[in-house]
Amino acid sequence: MTDSFLSRRQFLQGTAVTSAALWTPNSATARTANNLTNETEIGVSKWDLDTPVLCVDLDNFEQNVKTMQDTVTSNGIDCRPHAKTHKCPTIARLQIANGALGICTAKVSESEIMFEHGVEQILQTTANVTPTKIKRAMNLRRQCSSFVQATYTEQNARMLSEAAAALGIVADVVVDIDPGGHRTGITAGQPALALAQLVDSLPNLNFQGILCYDGGAQHVSGFEARRTRAIEGMSQAAETYAVMTRAGLNMKIFSGGGTGTYNMDHETPGFTDVQSGSYIFMDTSYRSIGSRDNNEIYTDFAPSLTIVTTVLTSQYEGRATTDAGAKSCTINRPWPSVVGETGMSYTSGSDEFGTIRYENPSRTYQTGETLELVVSHCDPVVNLYDRIYATRNDQVEAIWPIAARGKNQ
Amino acid sequence: MTDSFLSRRQFLQGTAVTSAALWTPNSATARTANNLTNETEIGVSKWDLDTPVLCVDLDNFEQNVKTMQDTVTSNGIDCRPHAKTHKCPTIARLQIANGALGICTAKVSESEIMFEHGVEQILQTTANVTPTKIKRAMNLRRQCSSFVQATYTEQNARMLSEAAAALGIVADVVVDIDPGGHRTGITAGQPALALAQLVDSLPNLNFQGILCYDGGAQHVSGFEARRTRAIEGMSQAAETYAVMTRAGLNMKIFSGGGTGTYNMDHETPGFTDVQSGSYIFMDTSYRSIGSRDNNEIYTDFAPSLTIVTTVLTSQYEGRATTDAGAKSCTINRPWPSVVGETGMSYTSGSDEFGTIRYENPSRTYQTGETLELVVSHCDPVVNLYDRIYATRNDQVEAIWPIAARGKNQ
Repeated sequence: MTDSFLSRRQFLQGTAVTSAALWTPNSATARTANNLTNETEIGVSKWDLDTPVLCVDLDNFEQNVKTMQDTVTSNGIDCRPHAKTHKCPTIARLQIANGALGICTAKVSESEIMFEHGVEQILQTTANVTPTKIKRAMNLRRQCSSFVQATYTEQNARMLSEAAAALGIVADVVVDIDPGGHRTGITAGQPALALAQLVDSLPNLNFQGILCYDGGAQHVSGFEARRTRAIEGMSQAAETYAVMTRAGLNMKIFSGGGTGTYNMDHETPGFTDVQSGSYIFMDTSYRSIGSRDNNEIYTDFAPSLTIVTTVLTSQYEGRATTDAGAKSCTINRPWPSVVGETGMSYTSGSDEFGTIRYENPSRTYQTGETLELVVSHCDPVVNLYDRIYATRNDQVEAIWPIAARGKNQ
Repeated sequence: MTDSFLSRRQFLQGTAVTSAALWTPNSATARTANNLTNETEIGVSKWDLDTPVLCVDLDNFEQNVKTMQDTVTSNGIDCRPHAKTHKCPTIARLQIANGALGICTAKVSESEIMFEHGVEQILQTTANVTPTKIKRAMNLRRQCSSFVQATYTEQNARMLSEAAAALGIVADVVVDIDPGGHRTGITAGQPALALAQLVDSLPNLNFQGILCYDGGAQHVSGFEARRTRAIEGMSQAAETYAVMTRAGLNMKIFSGGGTGTYNMDHETPGFTDVQSGSYIFMDTSYRSIGSRDNNEIYTDFAPSLTIVTTVLTSQYEGRATTDAGAKSCTINRPWPSVVGETGMSYTSGSDEFGTIRYENPSRTYQTGETLELVVSHCDPVVNLYDRIYATRNDQVEAIWPIAARGKNQ
């Protein structure tokens, strides 16, 4: 299985993104056990689906995949997309088939689901700290030789090595470095070096390098301000990388960055791959950070992920009520935006209902009519749904199970 | 099946809430096909479960069920709990077994799941406005004779009657009345009366009464302010009820209210049943509305729904990072609170990580330690999880599938 998957990947690597490459069932996708494809929904218009429904526009999605891959390749680095965004093994396999090094995951349960559905190149960016999770991770590592996990304390590294020893394996580990936000990771410099040397010396661990994710840099508005922050945020990790290299450590991986900094991260010396997640979908949050040409809208990637919703109430002046509220859209800000329309706002603060308010609207809606929303923040929105409808020219081409939805452990 | 279910309900009605009544497998619960009970997890301490994990404390939960039922009974009305809160057929059956008239649902997909899992007394409070949803609702009505649905426009009422006629059935309908927020519902008074008379006259609909839900009243802080708002908010619906009664219409149902107004709603003339949802679980949002005795905390119901989370990072001064972020807690406010501790705040604004900040903490946490959170807003939190662990004295007694999770259509 590994061989055929890799040869497929090698075959596709570097070729243009085509629709066949993206989703046509093949030996890789056939491994998806819980494929929810309902033949009666293939070929129908997304406007005829029951609502609320989560859709991805394949033309935009494919262009986003290509833009990311072309950019990192031309900058001499790789991408290792973060699967926490989509939780969808089909998308993970497509990203790898189109040139990604592999994927990142945030939780061991996500890692397990990805592996169960045919994804083998997995870097779990969050450390497993309890005996239960460490055992799960090592069981996965026993089956999946390319699984890499993060650590950031000496105690945790020792626990990982002992758990690996108990299973008779040697596990690949990267050291997570704190960019300064103190959320996770070890302090850069001497503490990180000492931990890396410990990992390198432990009998059942293989030191593979470092990761450093500066989430705060991703959403800085304005290209130059974001670039300054991104490079500054990574500077201590870069110095640590250099120190580790001089110490003779294996520095195969220096992973970090994301959708907001994907075209800056290569400026950090030693950096190997971007953990970009949202670029495939985009959302109103990322749209507002601005692009390189000083456009106020971040146009590098096109919004591909939308929710189609139906108007339930239209009889009151100046407003309408829809069927997509917080349980379909989350309450993240900026609020969802109505595709193709102006002069109206959309809020999803109510659990069951969305609210449209008209100011100087390009149109108004009647009860029973449908409209489409660009999502507010793609990661938690995807986590509300069991499937994504993949459409082209508004027609359903495939239905992708969000197999790792709710896998928060 | 209906007979044995009803006799079980009649048997239990009015008896004290006991643990056996609450969850012991029986002919009703045996109908739950996707029972996720994992025998290896029964009897273990909730502190030993993998995290993040959603738990309900059975002692508090049972007391909440009893308080609600005793209060509405002593006030001469009923309760018809809203299943949008729990999305869990096991809980719905327990509510009915302990005296509830039935349940409410927000979506037709929720109604379907509840019926598939043995719940038959269903009032869907949101109107079905598209041909697809109306067809689903009528198919459900064909199988479930006690299914009632809402309408609030003449056009919709005519569509419902035609769809019922196509299946050769007569469907029960209530008219949803707008309390003034213009979210859903028809305007009280003459418009509502005209619609009720239309429903009553249509060949394939049975008019069953009205509903009016004033969501804004539920969270008004302070008992007297809330009472004033609740009664004021329902006053036009109450006048409409009187007009409809004088017009000779069947006024079997006058449903509305919720957890914040459950002990005020009976003051509205004609009112029949409270659609309370959150009372079984409580959350930080409801806790802050204040109780009858002018306590700043709403103590009528005890928090029963918690998330157990593990500390991932403890090496930085003044803070800790946990494994329960927005995908496990939502970003609703007030933020979750740490059970039993003071001098610390918890935020779940980050998708994957929770943040504890210490001010004058009653304790601090080390990496790998667990803690328990009262949830921020129970409805959307439950909608993130596939199961609830039901515990007593911290031991797992049952695992309840959240079978309608994600059913937003």
